[in-house]
Amino acid sequence: MSLIVTGSIGIDTVITPEGKADEVLGGSCTYFAAAASYFCNVRLLAAVGEDFPDAHDAVFRHFSIDTRGLEKRKGSKTFRWTGKYLEDMNERETLDVQPNVLAEALPPVPEPFRDSRYVFLANTHPAGQMELRQQFPDARLVVADTMDLWINTANDELKALLKVIDGLVLNDSEAKLLTGKTNLVAAAEAIVSMGSKFVVIKKGEHGCLLLHREGVVALPAYPSREVHDPTGAGDSFAGGMMGYLAGCDDLGLDSIKKSLAYGTIVASFNIEAFSLERMKQITRTDIDARMAGFADMLRVA
Amino acid sequence: MSLIVTGSIGIDTVITPEGKADEVLGGSCTYFAAAASYFCNVRLLAAVGEDFPDAHDAVFRHFSIDTRGLEKRKGSKTFRWTGKYLEDMNERETLDVQPNVLAEALPPVPEPFRDSRYVFLANTHPAGQMELRQQFPDARLVVADTMDLWINTANDELKALLKVIDGLVLNDSEAKLLTGKTNLVAAAEAIVSMGSKFVVIKKGEHGCLLLHREGVVALPAYPSREVHDPTGAGDSFAGGMMGYLAGCDDLGLDSIKKSLAYGTIVASFNIEAFSLERMKQITRTDIDARMAGFADMLRVA
Repeated sequence: MSLIVTGSIGIDTVITPEGKADEVLGGSCTYFAAAASYFCNVRLLAAVGEDFPDAHDAVFRHFSIDTRGLEKRKGSKTFRWTGKYLEDMNERETLDVQPNVLAEALPPVPEPFRDSRYVFLANTHPAGQMELRQQFPDARLVVADTMDLWINTANDELKALLKVIDGLVLNDSEAKLLTGKTNLVAAAEAIVSMGSKFVVIKKGEHGCLLLHREGVVALPAYPSREVHDPTGAGDSFAGGMMGYLAGCDDLGLDSIKKSLAYGTIVASFNIEAFSLERMKQITRTDIDARMAGFADMLRVA
Repeated sequence: MSLIVTGSIGIDTVITPEGKADEVLGGSCTYFAAAASYFCNVRLLAAVGEDFPDAHDAVFRHFSIDTRGLEKRKGSKTFRWTGKYLEDMNERETLDVQPNVLAEALPPVPEPFRDSRYVFLANTHPAGQMELRQQFPDARLVVADTMDLWINTANDELKALLKVIDGLVLNDSEAKLLTGKTNLVAAAEAIVSMGSKFVVIKKGEHGCLLLHREGVVALPAYPSREVHDPTGAGDSFAGGMMGYLAGCDDLGLDSIKKSLAYGTIVASFNIEAFSLERMKQITRTDIDARMAGFADMLRVA
């Protein structure tokens, strides 16, 4: 099944304790699409500026991502982000952010993308997510990401969105902020009671928590020794998850659980190098090999 | 196989967002021994003061803990701790602490306890842990717990201890403090390189990480909705772990992994009520039922 994703494509400058990467390809959409591409056909709906380098286009070709919905907009500039991770890489500072084309309208959905059955609304203003959601009335699965900014400034729109999507993905501090609960299971229950069928709370190095109407699942992160750049960990997690679901086209709790494990594994590769460098080196075989080790690690009976 | 534990027995006053418990039974030794008692014979080596209430003795009897090494010392007073958990129960403040008998010498090891093959040195000064460790030269498994205080004030003694024990249990902030590493897998590797065969890093609501010479294992915590009092979570985790190992008398990586899962499950019950109230209500059957659900939750392939 085809999966469409909308979100940011950026030119990132990233500093971590392991080094620095200048003007590399980044953005939520990019990490998500690359991660999902191991499992299904991925369609991109996003805009970049006329400054977007050809070398970055080649990355989308590498992952066989369908870029018919990628607009290189004349007179606009690409979203740029500069960030620095601290010694404890759970902490980061944004040094510079230039929204540029992200502040403008999304490109229209290309006609051949209209039959997309799996839809991922990467983090953006919930009113924009709602607009896009309504263009896919027959989608089998619609999942959105969000962030603290929208919880604080567009709370009503976010809550309206929750009533018309199937799943929400967000991180632990955002889940606490959205619900006012400090216990994550309670926070997840409160989110599901707002309307979405399930919620996935991302906890970074501590793994994830799924609350689904059929049950609750906590998984650890893959224990990673070599973390070079955490950028895109959450997006590649979501990409692996949605890609696996679109690929198997099954939404039972067991498949959703397996999709979380695949998301975990793809994210564990992604953080081993800057930008998409590590993902470019691996194949589905590498993912499946690490997945088998992860499943074995989790076998306790 | 018999398991001996030494550590603190306390009279605790605990305030959490869920309520308050006055002068209840607590202490590392107490939680550990109760948790381990579901799996093996547990021997206690500890001192209390003459103020120790008979009602608390009854708790040890409830769990069939061998108290021949429990000295009710005349002229001494029992260790007392008063603590308050904040709205986010990962945070707590110590409001009052009276070491009392904890500042005095341990009772001698009773002759019938000398054949203990499993030894747990709960958190105390590493010089005291070393002294006790040397009294069990034929033990099959010796594991110690520690804390930030000893890492800061008795670092040399702690490092000497690490060379003569099999495993160390400590929490994530302590592992970072001991090694200066922020990546937990790297911190665990550094601890194993100091001499112990394995290390278990406790991450509270985020589960645990084991680094063993044969491999690395990360497990989530059991996703708990009802947390009434986190006191003793780490000690009951360690008790479930050591109790399971002493019960099966197998130290392969699979058994150690299973012991972590059992520790996780016992701890998940413990936090559902103040003091040992919840553990007093459950049997091994309840533990095994929750363990089966946990194993099922973790089945991703």
